Amino acid sequence: MTAPAARAVPSLPSGSGVTPTPTGPIPVPPPGAPRVDVEALSTTLLGRWADVRRAARARAARPELHRLDDLTVAQHRERVLEQMHLLAREGVSRIMLPESLGGPNDNGGNVAGFEELVVADPSLQIKAGVQWGLYTSAILQLGTAEHHARWIEDAMTLATPGAFAMTETGHGSDVQSLATTATYDPETQEWVVHTPFRAAWKDYLGNAALHARAATVFARLITNGVDHGVHCFYVPVRDEHGAMMPGVRSEDDGPKGGLNGIDNGRLAFDHVRIPRTNLLNRYGDVAPDGTYTSPIDSPGRRFFTMLGTLVQGRVSLDGAANRASQLALHIAITYASQRRQFTGASPTEETVLLDYQSHLARLLPRLAETYAGAFAHEQLLIAFDDVFSGRGDSPEAREDLETLAAALKPTSTRLALDTVQECREACGGQGFLAENRLVGLHQDLDVYATFEGDNTVLLQLVGKRLLSDYTDELRSIDRAGVGRFIAQRAEALSRRHTPWNRLVQTASDAGSMRRSSESLRLPEFQEAMLTERARLKVEEVALALRSAAGKEPAEAAAIVNKHQVELLDAARAHADLVRWEAFTAGIAGIDDEGTRLVLTDLRDLLGLTLIERDLAWFLLDGMISAQRGRTVSKDIRRLLWRLRPHALDLVDAFGLEPGHVRAPIALGAERERQDEAAAYVRARRASADAPLSEKAQKAALAEAERASARQGRGRRRP
Amino acid sequence: MTAPAARAVPSLPSGSGVTPTPTGPIPVPPPGAPRVDVEALSTTLLGRWADVRRAARARAARPELHRLDDLTVAQHRERVLEQMHLLAREGVSRIMLPESLGGPNDNGGNVAGFEELVVADPSLQIKAGVQWGLYTSAILQLGTAEHHARWIEDAMTLATPGAFAMTETGHGSDVQSLATTATYDPETQEWVVHTPFRAAWKDYLGNAALHARAATVFARLITNGVDHGVHCFYVPVRDEHGAMMPGVRSEDDGPKGGLNGIDNGRLAFDHVRIPRTNLLNRYGDVAPDGTYTSPIDSPGRRFFTMLGTLVQGRVSLDGAANRASQLALHIAITYASQRRQFTGASPTEETVLLDYQSHLARLLPRLAETYAGAFAHEQLLIAFDDVFSGRGDSPEAREDLETLAAALKPTSTRLALDTVQECREACGGQGFLAENRLVGLHQDLDVYATFEGDNTVLLQLVGKRLLSDYTDELRSIDRAGVGRFIAQRAEALSRRHTPWNRLVQTASDAGSMRRSSESLRLPEFQEAMLTERARLKVEEVALALRSAAGKEPAEAAAIVNKHQVELLDAARAHADLVRWEAFTAGIAGIDDEGTRLVLTDLRDLLGLTLIERDLAWFLLDGMISAQRGRTVSKDIRRLLWRLRPHALDLVDAFGLEPGHVRAPIALGAERERQDEAAAYVRARRASADAPLSEKAQKAALAEAERASARQGRGRRRP
Repeated sequence: MTAPAARAVPSLPSGSGVTPTPTGPIPVPPPGAPRVDVEALSTTLLGRWADVRRAARARAARPELHRLDDLTVAQHRERVLEQMHLLAREGVSRIMLPESLGGPNDNGGNVAGFEELVVADPSLQIKAGVQWGLYTSAILQLGTAEHHARWIEDAMTLATPGAFAMTETGHGSDVQSLATTATYDPETQEWVVHTPFRAAWKDYLGNAALHARAATVFARLITNGVDHGVHCFYVPVRDEHGAMMPGVRSEDDGPKGGLNGIDNGRLAFDHVRIPRTNLLNRYGDVAPDGTYTSPIDSPGRRFFTMLGTLVQGRVSLDGAANRASQLALHIAITYASQRRQFTGASPTEETVLLDYQSHLARLLPRLAETYAGAFAHEQLLIAFDDVFSGRGDSPEAREDLETLAAALKPTSTRLALDTVQECREACGGQGFLAENRLVGLHQDLDVYATFEGDNTVLLQLVGKRLLSDYTDELRSIDRAGVGRFIAQRAEALSRRHTPWNRLVQTASDAGSMRRSSESLRLPEFQEAMLTERARLKVEEVALALRSAAGKEPAEAAAIVNKHQVELLDAARAHADLVRWEAFTAGIAGIDDEGTRLVLTDLRDLLGLTLIERDLAWFLLDGMISAQRGRTVSKDIRRLLWRLRPHALDLVDAFGLEPGHVRAPIALGAERERQDEAAAYVRARRASADAPLSEKAQKAALAEAERASARQGRGRRRP
Repeated sequence: MTAPAARAVPSLPSGSGVTPTPTGPIPVPPPGAPRVDVEALSTTLLGRWADVRRAARARAARPELHRLDDLTVAQHRERVLEQMHLLAREGVSRIMLPESLGGPNDNGGNVAGFEELVVADPSLQIKAGVQWGLYTSAILQLGTAEHHARWIEDAMTLATPGAFAMTETGHGSDVQSLATTATYDPETQEWVVHTPFRAAWKDYLGNAALHARAATVFARLITNGVDHGVHCFYVPVRDEHGAMMPGVRSEDDGPKGGLNGIDNGRLAFDHVRIPRTNLLNRYGDVAPDGTYTSPIDSPGRRFFTMLGTLVQGRVSLDGAANRASQLALHIAITYASQRRQFTGASPTEETVLLDYQSHLARLLPRLAETYAGAFAHEQLLIAFDDVFSGRGDSPEAREDLETLAAALKPTSTRLALDTVQECREACGGQGFLAENRLVGLHQDLDVYATFEGDNTVLLQLVGKRLLSDYTDELRSIDRAGVGRFIAQRAEALSRRHTPWNRLVQTASDAGSMRRSSESLRLPEFQEAMLTERARLKVEEVALALRSAAGKEPAEAAAIVNKHQVELLDAARAHADLVRWEAFTAGIAGIDDEGTRLVLTDLRDLLGLTLIERDLAWFLLDGMISAQRGRTVSKDIRRLLWRLRPHALDLVDAFGLEPGHVRAPIALGAERERQDEAAAYVRARRASADAPLSEKAQKAALAEAERASARQGRGRRRP
């Protein structure tokens, strides 16, 4: 399923039959060498929701859904609103509806489908996410049957565009500290929604500047003089003519770094009254007399349960960010396999960019991470679907899902930004032209790093979860077990000052560099390194934080803060392990042997890259010996060359059609230019009137002079 | 010279008199501790061209020169053109003119002034750079008196907007391979300028899409059947009504990732005839009969001499990129010192972002690099001025200047992009709003990484220069010296497998962690580490490439390519050393002791950060022992806290006025919101009708129940 232009090069036979040399002919796998079955790998990557994705990809290829480059903010917003109506008319998001509302409750499929929209226009993906993933989901997940009956249909059809009014200017990451209040008035049986000060304005809300008619507003529920913490309320904000409702104010966030197809804005409430039943009351309700009740007794657990229903946003950003990385790599790798610059091996033919070692080193490790991200995302999506379908719903499953989402969303959004930027630079001036997509992708994806949970805050959540698991483990060991546990950890700790390979590899290693590099590529080695690192980093922080126990809050907070960087580092190490394991599990599910072998090389590139990035830590902790440490980067470079002939196949398997790619440099423009120039140079060289270079002329003149001198001598001699 | 709002916090006395605790009161240097003399440091940073910079800063603060956020490409181009006319009317760039044209020949001042424009609008900085730094400079540097008389005045006044037509779609970095031809026709005594194929179109040229009336076109000079390589020709491209000249075609590059105030475009020539005297003939000329002459005999050296006159662009990008980093850090650090999120130490007051360890770790190392970049840039600017004023002009000085520019431009433009992005993310949602400047800065600065010499290609140039210096050094040693040299290198090589500290630090070290960390901060240690690293990395590549000598070109190219990543790495190590040394030299020139002490901490942060990034290499090469290696990151974290109280002073010294900053979050908006919210919370807490939290209510209920139970027992007991 690939654009012919995008596969312009590798059908040429190399004819060499050997490992390609860096500057030789365009490398293709030699006969008998493993080859990627692009079609089959593409199907694997489509995953469980392949049909939904195929339909969504067909949709994402339609020109009327595409981002245009030179629109004003107003024009872009108008265009995306029209696109939203188109999606609504086609009922795209109805598969998210539960059986009670006539839907199939296909939450995984719904998210999978919307992720694919990112290649059409990220503004559309996010505006759809606001409407159906956040606003509608809040009503579905936090409301009850009556709310569903009253508001869901209009939300689906976009009769009521909605805003998801959680974040305030003063509080984004710390939702628990939101300051908007909803105070119950038993006299009128109404809520009074109020914004007490400027920092409590709801902010950055998609749909708030222009289009929203209603908002799901998160506010502190206050009744009978008690503040029950943040709950969600349904508040109409504009009438059918678009005029603000009494007491509601709106401001425009104005132009942004990207996603300018979305009308982000602010909302404030000046004692706005709404009926008692506009409280979305699944997890907390108020009787007409103002008595508060909740199925969850602990206010803390109740709050986190409510928040947890919103994990969908993070799941879908993880998928979309991964798709964006795929698109960027497709463009940059296709271009790099056609674009030539500087002569190296041949005096007449220039070298294609992808044959430069540094170019491979820029792009292929990110390709490996993107594959890992794709397999990890599929696991996340399945976990999400299991919980939200109710098939695998339990407090533990929800907590695991939230931790996985909190680990993967920062990882994939960071990777996407870095990958898009690297790809843009790898395409030089072409990469800076809007038509080649990369700059627009970076602009739009930029905010993925800080919205729906700031990446640093999410990693901190992961770190805290890992710490608490570690502490639980210690706590759950009985008296007899403690001795065994301590002995185990002592062994692990002692290993940290003894090179790992000395313990386990004396038999196989025998000091040979080649062997030692082979064993770097054993999955058992990579897994042991990444697992132990993730564990030890948590353990180190846990040990360092023991001194905080029993201290005054201020002092304890200071101690925790002094290890914040390490805690974030431990969380990243955990995310690395998750991705590596997902990639490895993904490979195990592939039937075609050639594909499996190539992907194993790519997985090894991931494993060794992750180890190389943290090599100083592995060396200092004694887990990797200096001898072996020296081979890591060499082995990575070898893998780059082994993977070089498969680079185009690996991006082809992402299944990006011309209607998704749209970048001229990856759709034949560069190829055409190169072919025309090469033909010109060939013709010129064959013609008689081609100018001589000055150097050649000088050499010829010198030769002529020498000849004439010889002749002169010859004449004088007789 | 600082906006009052930007210095909102640190005037509060801490009262503690001790090193600030992470979550304690806003840290200011305790009495008696070193303090930065902001005014004096600001003056130091202004450097040799302080007066020009002050005038340029006043200009850059004028609203009519500022970038607006929601313009179409056409509107932005129109606005920047008007701004250019304003600069021309004010004669801003006349200081670049040589004495022969009535100017002071102040090349350093000219570049210094234009760098400052980046905070007004990078499009203006670059469009001015195209007109006066490239187009006019080409006429000045490559032309002779007659050309100056004919074209310079109209270039200065913008009567002739010009394009600098060097890059072609098919060749950017590899200028030597440009394909446009200028063939001499002795019959008419004209040049025939021609674009032979699509990839030879001139591309990405500022002014080409709309405004240029003339272009300095780089083309292969062909006369009498000989191709003398790339020379520069003056070609009119539009008439006074803006219509294309016969045979000249233009295309628009369209919207770009940034710099949309510039009309970048393409030019092609279909046998366009220009007079013989339109060849800019300083380095090569053709007589009426077509005879070619040049003051430089070697075609290679002639080409590089011509190119070398264009180093000014790289110098000015280095300065502008550094200024952009300063602006981003000013915004992010000011905001981080006011913005609060999550309670830590105090149950009522939230922690400011800059008091989080991870936030310091994100921003302060970049602040250290930006300071180093500022001092290094000043050295570069002085070197540039010495050469271009003629005071210090020699082939060696030019070569050194080019190498320094090639090392610093990639370093500072990379740093700017990374810093702006980190700052944007560190400001969360606010950072994504266009009004807060960071996203616009990233968009505009993006292309600095690949234009005026692609960063990778420039670093490769540096690497090659380092290699050739190394080889020369070997070659220049006489027979007796070779033995001594080999003995020296053998010592160095043996040290690579013996921890450095074992050799030199046995006396002082004595295993104490504290001592060992102190010595990490000795400038001698940092200098030795960075110098040896830069040297050894070149040596390693040189040794690896020995096998390429005498091989067939294809094989030799393959060997070189296999070490390309290492060569680039060696070039980066060199650039790190240059920056560290410039920072250290800059500190030595500061009189105020407090300032010197704080900057020394900042320089240590730079040194240790550079070492930490490459710690695995230092460990593997035996230059740093495992014991010392373990202290590097701890020492960095200690430095972060030591520098925390000075962070605002350090960004204040950049001398950015409100008219440069313009980001509301760094000009009081956040401060106001925080103050209002804090006042509200205080008033609320003091009032009687504040709601109780559910937790407090539950505790009170439980207490009441216990009391009533006690009463019940009491009653039963009598």
